[in-house]
Amino acid sequence: MARTKKYNAFYAQSGGVTAVINASACGVIEAARENKDKIGKVYAGRNGIIGALTEDLIDTSKESKKDIAALKYTPSGAFGSCRYKLKSLEQNRAEYERLIEVFKAHDIRYFFYNGGGDSADTCLKVSQLSEQLGYPIQAIHIPKTVDNDLPFTDNCPGFGSVAKYIAVSIREAGFDVASMSKTSTKVFVMEVMGRHAGWIAAAGGLAAEKEGDSPHIILFPEIPFNQDKFLKKVDRCVKKFGYCAIVVSEGAQHKDGSFLAESGTTDAFGHKQLGGVAPFVAQLVKDELGYKYHWAVADYLQRAARHIASKTDVEQAYAVGHAAVDYALKGKNSVMVTIDRKPTKRYSWKLGEAPLEKIANVEKMMPRNFITRDGFHITDACREYLSPLIQGESYPEYKNGLPQYVTLKNEAVEKKLKKKFKV
Amino acid sequence: MARTKKYNAFYAQSGGVTAVINASACGVIEAARENKDKIGKVYAGRNGIIGALTEDLIDTSKESKKDIAALKYTPSGAFGSCRYKLKSLEQNRAEYERLIEVFKAHDIRYFFYNGGGDSADTCLKVSQLSEQLGYPIQAIHIPKTVDNDLPFTDNCPGFGSVAKYIAVSIREAGFDVASMSKTSTKVFVMEVMGRHAGWIAAAGGLAAEKEGDSPHIILFPEIPFNQDKFLKKVDRCVKKFGYCAIVVSEGAQHKDGSFLAESGTTDAFGHKQLGGVAPFVAQLVKDELGYKYHWAVADYLQRAARHIASKTDVEQAYAVGHAAVDYALKGKNSVMVTIDRKPTKRYSWKLGEAPLEKIANVEKMMPRNFITRDGFHITDACREYLSPLIQGESYPEYKNGLPQYVTLKNEAVEKKLKKKFKV
Repeated sequence: MARTKKYNAFYAQSGGVTAVINASACGVIEAARENKDKIGKVYAGRNGIIGALTEDLIDTSKESKKDIAALKYTPSGAFGSCRYKLKSLEQNRAEYERLIEVFKAHDIRYFFYNGGGDSADTCLKVSQLSEQLGYPIQAIHIPKTVDNDLPFTDNCPGFGSVAKYIAVSIREAGFDVASMSKTSTKVFVMEVMGRHAGWIAAAGGLAAEKEGDSPHIILFPEIPFNQDKFLKKVDRCVKKFGYCAIVVSEGAQHKDGSFLAESGTTDAFGHKQLGGVAPFVAQLVKDELGYKYHWAVADYLQRAARHIASKTDVEQAYAVGHAAVDYALKGKNSVMVTIDRKPTKRYSWKLGEAPLEKIANVEKMMPRNFITRDGFHITDACREYLSPLIQGESYPEYKNGLPQYVTLKNEAVEKKLKKKFKV
Repeated sequence: MARTKKYNAFYAQSGGVTAVINASACGVIEAARENKDKIGKVYAGRNGIIGALTEDLIDTSKESKKDIAALKYTPSGAFGSCRYKLKSLEQNRAEYERLIEVFKAHDIRYFFYNGGGDSADTCLKVSQLSEQLGYPIQAIHIPKTVDNDLPFTDNCPGFGSVAKYIAVSIREAGFDVASMSKTSTKVFVMEVMGRHAGWIAAAGGLAAEKEGDSPHIILFPEIPFNQDKFLKKVDRCVKKFGYCAIVVSEGAQHKDGSFLAESGTTDAFGHKQLGGVAPFVAQLVKDELGYKYHWAVADYLQRAARHIASKTDVEQAYAVGHAAVDYALKGKNSVMVTIDRKPTKRYSWKLGEAPLEKIANVEKMMPRNFITRDGFHITDACREYLSPLIQGESYPEYKNGLPQYVTLKNEAVEKKLKKKFKV
């Protein structure tokens, strides 16, 4: 029997953006366009879920085929993302009711939410409330996080590209320092993201393929910082290899759980300085061992680096977006699209799914057997897990020497509700 | 008349390395190999000029054709570089005499020195002394510096690639911040190299092709920091574009000539903290305007980033190396190879030369008309100068998701002198 009515879809980007979250957006929109007989328009939330709450929707049907395809090569969140966690249903039912109200007004019956753990939780609640209120919404979560900390999926889109950036960067910086170490810098410290889990720091370890390769030391959030052991290892590296290259996670911490980055640095005004674990570690080495140092903090550069994105990551990000629509059209609800590693010798993967109620607010930490016994590097098991995720290059197009990233028109959908909603 | 005897060449890398200095080394070695009938072996100094002083020479003839070709794609200094400035002839004549002694012992009559202003000066002195001592040496300087501050050459190999890295990075980070600015970071600060001249900071400006593009503000060493004007501009940008992306040169300074980076930050031990103008500027914005910030310090990543090198830069780096040998074989002496911009509408260049006595210790600063009147951005004239230098991509080969950079065997030449020399 033919469907009599087509319903619209809502898509939003949530939390910190990545080099490939727009590839997921591209997957969603292209899949919807391929199924024009079954699905209406894709409305994107301007600045994520805030766009839904304030009825600030973007009509993606106004974008050209070419511009949507270009999303696959554009970092950041093309519709705007936000850090806005919906409270629990008990604490702020009004927010969820408002979402349903907006969805009703715009004939939206598909909710595609592209984010990490928090947004999986939001996605779950939307699907629960829609059931309670009797308004049918299919909520599908599209995984995204550079932190790689979502459960049930083998890895998270966004992570492979930041991993590749970190591994490439510490290899290149290592070559640089090695060649200068005779008379200049002997210790180089690179700070990377990952406040709770050491996945990104671990990826730096991929650059070291044989003894003596950069990086020599990785400081993980999972391993409490042991100053003596660390300094001894730095000294040994400098004596043996001429230099020491270090990757430190922003989440590296003391035994008592306080971050190294908070170790009492004050600025010109006497304020406690925020961030900067790399300068802290570098200064410690200088004070205790006397070695000349340099340090780098890649910050947003690492997660925005579409120019050096992992092809595998781009393909997976696109695939999970596309699959979200496919799943919805198959009638699925309240699930997250997962990437499942196949048990083949050569890396291969397929898409799967996991129920949202099992995912929300669970963080996947690095297994201890991914970190060497001394706590300063990755094991072969870790290497085997990480290596496939950075495979392949997927270069954007260049013009005038610069990558061409698309900025969409982002035309607003006409509002239908009289009531405003304050976020 | 056929030459009866072939003489060897000495090649050394000097000062901070770049993404393409090895492409110059490749040019030198390949040119010499093409002229095997006229020139003997190329001996490289291990760790730059220190290798010559200590008679620690590397026999490049032991390297395979493939490995030498791979230098074109490998960042850093393959033979080691050093920061070691020879004193004046009057102050330390012994050093120069030692060089001549080593050259004599190894039949070296070509001196190729690959570096910036200081090494041009050394190159000049070597050629002067060889004349005084009656030992014939042809000294040719091969330009290299990320700082782009050598005179007489239109630009310096090494600069184009760091320029491209900075422009790409601030474009990518700008996209990231723009998409998050509704609820998160509003001001992003990226610190770049260039202690004396703002060429690298200026390159960031290329990313901004139309109003509102990142970066919105550039802080040059050439323009004394005006805090009020700066904060007003930041505030205006945030109000107009939703965010503000800033490129700050490590050499940015106050009116009195002190660096912003020295602005009194102290570390956990009460020591004055070195480096870090980005955190200083970011904190200033937070304190005065209250905006949430993030900052990045690319440090060595920028000059080692061979993965995103400028094709133009790679070609020029190779060409100046190759030309150094060609010039030597034509009998030239005491010159630097230059890159000359041709007066064509579409950018084109040719090789030239300049006498070393005019180059040594002269720094080429940014012309004032390359900086906008308000001091915060680049002009069209600057854009026209810079843009061709970042054109084209020259990707290295990848394996296991990582760029393949060569590490040479670097076999030592047997020592011939009994006397040791202490540096």
